[in-house]
Amino acid sequence: MQLLKEKIINEGKVKEGNILKVDNFLNHRLDIQFLQEVGKEFKRIFSDVNINKILTIEASGIAIASIVAQYFDNIPVVFAKKAKSQNLDGDLYTSTVKSYIYSKNYTITVAQKFLQKNDNILIIDDFLAEGNAMKGLIDVVNQSKANVAGVGIVIEKGYQNGGKDLRNMGIRVESLAIIDDMNENEIIFID
Amino acid sequence: MQLLKEKIINEGKVKEGNILKVDNFLNHRLDIQFLQEVGKEFKRIFSDVNINKILTIEASGIAIASIVAQYFDNIPVVFAKKAKSQNLDGDLYTSTVKSYIYSKNYTITVAQKFLQKNDNILIIDDFLAEGNAMKGLIDVVNQSKANVAGVGIVIEKGYQNGGKDLRNMGIRVESLAIIDDMNENEIIFID
Repeated sequence: MQLLKEKIINEGKVKEGNILKVDNFLNHRLDIQFLQEVGKEFKRIFSDVNINKILTIEASGIAIASIVAQYFDNIPVVFAKKAKSQNLDGDLYTSTVKSYIYSKNYTITVAQKFLQKNDNILIIDDFLAEGNAMKGLIDVVNQSKANVAGVGIVIEKGYQNGGKDLRNMGIRVESLAIIDDMNENEIIFID
Repeated sequence: MQLLKEKIINEGKVKEGNILKVDNFLNHRLDIQFLQEVGKEFKRIFSDVNINKILTIEASGIAIASIVAQYFDNIPVVFAKKAKSQNLDGDLYTSTVKSYIYSKNYTITVAQKFLQKNDNILIIDDFLAEGNAMKGLIDVVNQSKANVAGVGIVIEKGYQNGGKDLRNMGIRVESLAIIDDMNENEIIFID
């Protein structure tokens, strides 16, 4: 997605520790008009699939998933929660996720009533690196016996293993930009 | 907002500990079409004000704020973060917030570069109870010397002090539904 690549080049910053900061448009300040273009692009890519629900994970995935859902006939969005909340009760699906940035594990939770076995689910998130959060979401969908129609990622770090791992699991992964390599002076995309 | 009241009556559940669960449409599963109606209603209410930015707080405020922003000419949304992240650097505004549900304090953070002193900001959130998160967001806006044009709340618990406190501070608070009282059998709205 050319617009995304331009925004990464113009507004992104590479920081120590393999961190690409895109907080100006994707995960702290949100560029709503840009997210609408992301929504149109995911709809174009997944137009061959009949998706009825979007699943994401708090916090950065929520804005993207909500705007994207509008281009899929306003289908519902469910977001997995990272913290155990007094507000969560009833039967829950949970999965343990290893965090790349925070170097510790956390548990993601989705109320069972929000995933049905005949759901055809598009999973959406901002970044794909090692893919641990995505594997947790796929685990949760598998527990519910629903189907993962695909994973839609805004920015994939192609030099990390998440994309390869998910594709080896037979998951359809569509990333709007794949970074081949990056350093403080340069960001190189695949194709 | 009549549609909201109906959804609260039909889909909400009152749980022990003064908890109103609206996870079916507002803060776990998201009803996107309903959030669009919320966006239209906030635009109608705040049509007399020239708002150029929306501020909210993770996680539940993000979806609402992102959809609402579309009805304000796609103005940017900034969401305050609750956890200290390696991804946050540069100069930060912070404020300490007492959590009603979790019974402990937490720090909210906004990068200084995302708030300018000539901003006219609409603060958006799902719930207003004691108003602690809102007071934290207002504190952050005040630090930046920007202006709080108003606070837009989906559901206000009228029997708690948040709304009164904020209005006594001179803040314009607009809630789409105000609950006067609730128990397991009944939810009563103000007007």
